[in-house]
Amino acid sequence: MHLDDVHSPEQLRGMSRAELEDLAAQIRSRIIGTVAQNGGHLASNLGTVELTIALHRVFDFSTDKLIFDVGHQSYTHKLLTGREDRFDTLRQFGGLAGFPRREESVYDAFDTGHASTAISAAAGLARARDLLGDTYHVVSVVGDGALTGGMCYEALNDAGSNNLRMIIVLNDNGMSISRNVGAISGYLTRMRAGKGWFDVKRVISEGLKRAPVGGEALYRLFHRFKDSLRNIFVQDRFFDSLNVHYLGPVDGNDISGLERLFRKAKELDETVLIHAVTRKGSGYSQAEDHPSRLHGTPPFNVETGEPLSPAAAGMSETAGDELLRLAQTDRRVAAVTAAMTSGTGLKRFAREMPDRLFDVGIAEEHAVTMAAGLAAGGMRPFVAVYDTFLQRAFDQILHDVCLQRLPVCFLIDRAGLSEDGVTHHGIYGISYLSQIPGLTVLCASSRAELRAMMRFALRRDGPVAIRYNKADLSGNEDDTEPPEYRAAWRRLRGGEDAAILATGSIVYECLNAAEALRGKGIDCAVYNASCVSPLDEETLSAISLPLITVEEGALKGGFGSLVAAFRADRGLPAPALSLGLTGLCSTQGSRNAQLEAYGLDAASIARRILEWRKSQ
Amino acid sequence: MHLDDVHSPEQLRGMSRAELEDLAAQIRSRIIGTVAQNGGHLASNLGTVELTIALHRVFDFSTDKLIFDVGHQSYTHKLLTGREDRFDTLRQFGGLAGFPRREESVYDAFDTGHASTAISAAAGLARARDLLGDTYHVVSVVGDGALTGGMCYEALNDAGSNNLRMIIVLNDNGMSISRNVGAISGYLTRMRAGKGWFDVKRVISEGLKRAPVGGEALYRLFHRFKDSLRNIFVQDRFFDSLNVHYLGPVDGNDISGLERLFRKAKELDETVLIHAVTRKGSGYSQAEDHPSRLHGTPPFNVETGEPLSPAAAGMSETAGDELLRLAQTDRRVAAVTAAMTSGTGLKRFAREMPDRLFDVGIAEEHAVTMAAGLAAGGMRPFVAVYDTFLQRAFDQILHDVCLQRLPVCFLIDRAGLSEDGVTHHGIYGISYLSQIPGLTVLCASSRAELRAMMRFALRRDGPVAIRYNKADLSGNEDDTEPPEYRAAWRRLRGGEDAAILATGSIVYECLNAAEALRGKGIDCAVYNASCVSPLDEETLSAISLPLITVEEGALKGGFGSLVAAFRADRGLPAPALSLGLTGLCSTQGSRNAQLEAYGLDAASIARRILEWRKSQ
Repeated sequence: MHLDDVHSPEQLRGMSRAELEDLAAQIRSRIIGTVAQNGGHLASNLGTVELTIALHRVFDFSTDKLIFDVGHQSYTHKLLTGREDRFDTLRQFGGLAGFPRREESVYDAFDTGHASTAISAAAGLARARDLLGDTYHVVSVVGDGALTGGMCYEALNDAGSNNLRMIIVLNDNGMSISRNVGAISGYLTRMRAGKGWFDVKRVISEGLKRAPVGGEALYRLFHRFKDSLRNIFVQDRFFDSLNVHYLGPVDGNDISGLERLFRKAKELDETVLIHAVTRKGSGYSQAEDHPSRLHGTPPFNVETGEPLSPAAAGMSETAGDELLRLAQTDRRVAAVTAAMTSGTGLKRFAREMPDRLFDVGIAEEHAVTMAAGLAAGGMRPFVAVYDTFLQRAFDQILHDVCLQRLPVCFLIDRAGLSEDGVTHHGIYGISYLSQIPGLTVLCASSRAELRAMMRFALRRDGPVAIRYNKADLSGNEDDTEPPEYRAAWRRLRGGEDAAILATGSIVYECLNAAEALRGKGIDCAVYNASCVSPLDEETLSAISLPLITVEEGALKGGFGSLVAAFRADRGLPAPALSLGLTGLCSTQGSRNAQLEAYGLDAASIARRILEWRKSQ
Repeated sequence: MHLDDVHSPEQLRGMSRAELEDLAAQIRSRIIGTVAQNGGHLASNLGTVELTIALHRVFDFSTDKLIFDVGHQSYTHKLLTGREDRFDTLRQFGGLAGFPRREESVYDAFDTGHASTAISAAAGLARARDLLGDTYHVVSVVGDGALTGGMCYEALNDAGSNNLRMIIVLNDNGMSISRNVGAISGYLTRMRAGKGWFDVKRVISEGLKRAPVGGEALYRLFHRFKDSLRNIFVQDRFFDSLNVHYLGPVDGNDISGLERLFRKAKELDETVLIHAVTRKGSGYSQAEDHPSRLHGTPPFNVETGEPLSPAAAGMSETAGDELLRLAQTDRRVAAVTAAMTSGTGLKRFAREMPDRLFDVGIAEEHAVTMAAGLAAGGMRPFVAVYDTFLQRAFDQILHDVCLQRLPVCFLIDRAGLSEDGVTHHGIYGISYLSQIPGLTVLCASSRAELRAMMRFALRRDGPVAIRYNKADLSGNEDDTEPPEYRAAWRRLRGGEDAAILATGSIVYECLNAAEALRGKGIDCAVYNASCVSPLDEETLSAISLPLITVEEGALKGGFGSLVAAFRADRGLPAPALSLGLTGLCSTQGSRNAQLEAYGLDAASIARRILEWRKSQ
């Protein structure tokens, strides 16, 4: 059967092994082709094709609930649940999301994006089911990487002790995003070594049943003692101590083996964890060989696995390289990250100074408080995390770092709108960080500025947060080494009619907008408002032109509102216009398309300023 | 030796067993006396007297580092580290903090207050030590309740896999704040059953050494096999799977036994966890019998253990009772809490509707996402958590509840300034919640309003947060059943000179301020601005008087700044005055003393309005 004839997962149930294998091959090829074109998550999706097929054969997810942790491994699920015809729009503006979305399909039971949430959500669904008299199954698929997140443990601790009827599929590919870390990772590796048990058991069971004499009796005897025998091969302690019924390990790329365990789990009236060992990138040699590089990838050449356009040296690499330079001259400098060594540009640092780089796995909370401990012990830690993921450590930043005024610097990558959409936008950073007492919040608009801010942070005796976009958006025009950074705003351009106050990633859109406006007879000054907390009060008090604030972030509690509150406090005129984001920003795709949608590209900014001007 | 002659923990080292026991008794009596007077944490401190003495005898915490998780069990530590003379100021305005504070003493290595942070901080300190060539020991004391928090697991997973040299003392009293929950709690209970092993081992060891013939050889033989023998009694799986060296269980109220294990742990070059079983309330029968009620207590009668003044029916009980009422008529209603069944007034709910109350332990993140799962499954969960602790679930509120617009209601208790001080103030709630798209944020000023808001939340098809103080501050004057709540502001009082916009707990201070101002010839209207996100835009746009905003919360991103931003956006005059909190609010003690310190009591509000008026 052709993949495009599969309109519902029900159709899978009648297929033969051969048909299923053929379908898996078609799915792989479709995923590779689409991701090669659009970019996206590759290796993890290739690793879970059989797992997803087996799930849809054993369960009926039009009523049963399926939750993918993180959700980046849901491509096969999307292809099998009536979204095949739109699959080429994956991750594009207006297209299919790269993550499960309830508004996309009834087969998506819960939206995900950030890691380690699925078991908690599943526990809630299981309880709702029992309270409301429903009977469906609740299945969550959790990667071994996400298992380093504390939420998983909190949820297992709860589910296990209450014997909630739910099935957790541990998709163990031995990686988070890059190499996996932590004691549990080592534990799972040892557990994987017990995989042989399932083959042994099958051979014995089948052999005994076929034995000509006394086979049935021997078979019963074997079954009576098989749990003891099993312990020779598999001795789970971790999940058992959490009162979670462990099944496995099982080959996660073997549909029949998976189905057998899924059917067994369906019959159990308790919390069951099935340990499925998958191969990241399975079926595509480039991804099997480079699962980390082809975890999340830009468009690439299918033959070589290489990106179509060479990656520009972005802000992440600048941060990583500058941090290495600082570490080379200051032995107090250390790097902390949460499974993002590569994504935050720390690969060179990890190579050259491995004893001062701490990748704690997907565990942002621990990362931040561990950094607070480093700082309390005399080090100068720099915590490199994506803006959206740092949300998880809001309390730790406030309670463990800032109340003690500890000199931790947060390198906050991926600030601004994200290609991955609503769950990944880095648009709340200014709001949630600027309210934290004692935290200096900076937004870098160019690589040179980022470097200068990092040196500033090292000189400060207190916490500093530096936010920046992935790409250097300045076109390098500003990339000369600036004088020592002093947490002051810079006027990038003079003007008589209005002053545009722009911060971080949006500064250069505003410069272009000002340029366009000059052609229309409006002369705008542009300020690079690089420090948003505290504001540059001196500069802000001195500007007598009408103010226009612009930010690539949420307006509520954001830069514009900070300016408005400060000006009100001083009895100065409020900003005439505050441009930024409001409400749920549920777009995805290229940053430019999204900026346009929200009226934040240069042309829209110019147009909106023109409209304001006309209304005066 | 008298307790008041102990000026340094060094003095403990020369004391005999009898002297130590006498000292322990003096400490207990001092703690009981002071807490009976000032209120504070009682049961947990009584349980850890011997533990703390033993720690100070084996370690030198002028250089070694001691971190108390949560920190409410640090009273003995304070008494032994030169703070005995100020102990009667405990928890009072300007007095000793109820938690470790680095600025109070060199013996306090890391500030704590929220649960489950200590192992992370310890891991950072241990790494800083190793990188900077120091040699000190790092000891953290973690309660079994805090162990339900995911951060502990993230930290153990990291420390264990890296063999960080550090010592974790698990203070297992079988309770969080109330009865402990979760699978790990059950696991620890089973482990405690193995306590007999230590007695057996000691008896055998000593017996063999004294045996007249071949004793030494038998002793060596015993030592060779003692780990196997130990497994008969104690079989740790959980910590072992995390690669953490488990020692124990040991009687946590036996100084000698504790010292023996501490000395052993000191010699090990890895992550060691010592399982100490303590009795909450030990040595004071009232606290032993009622460890939950005497966990955190107001001033009480030492004879009876009863509070000096009967607890007024506060907002917590109102929330709990109203929730029970709603649950009785709507089967979708459920309660979720994080070890705060009693603190959030849910005890009656727990008794009468146990199957719809979910106490997940100290695990706010899981609580929120589990509630999201409940809502996705058709339930209407109400999550009752203290404002300061809900900070830990910022990402989950945003990512798991609000991006999906799930109908979860947050009952946010203890909003406003906290007696417990800087780590416990509920003053960031408006800021961090109002920036979350789609979340309706309400602040209740009276019990009647709280009830009406809860019914409003149940009618809404989306997330709602309701913040309130512990006590009903309205003096019940407003405690008649109001009409259906409609998320609109109410004018409580008319006036010609200015309009005071007050929200939540501060409304009645403002009414009193307005009353006082009338006597001085200034006539202020007062609005109860009960909904802060969204604002009541219609009312706010219509007010033409000079505006004065007042909140018992951080100004940055708070109510005042939301009003300023909205008025700027509409081209209306900014607030003339915004009263609230700025910077680090490091006060503690009674709410009134703190309000006065920040100029937010009725008299100060009146004075500040008068000053503003004069400056016009």
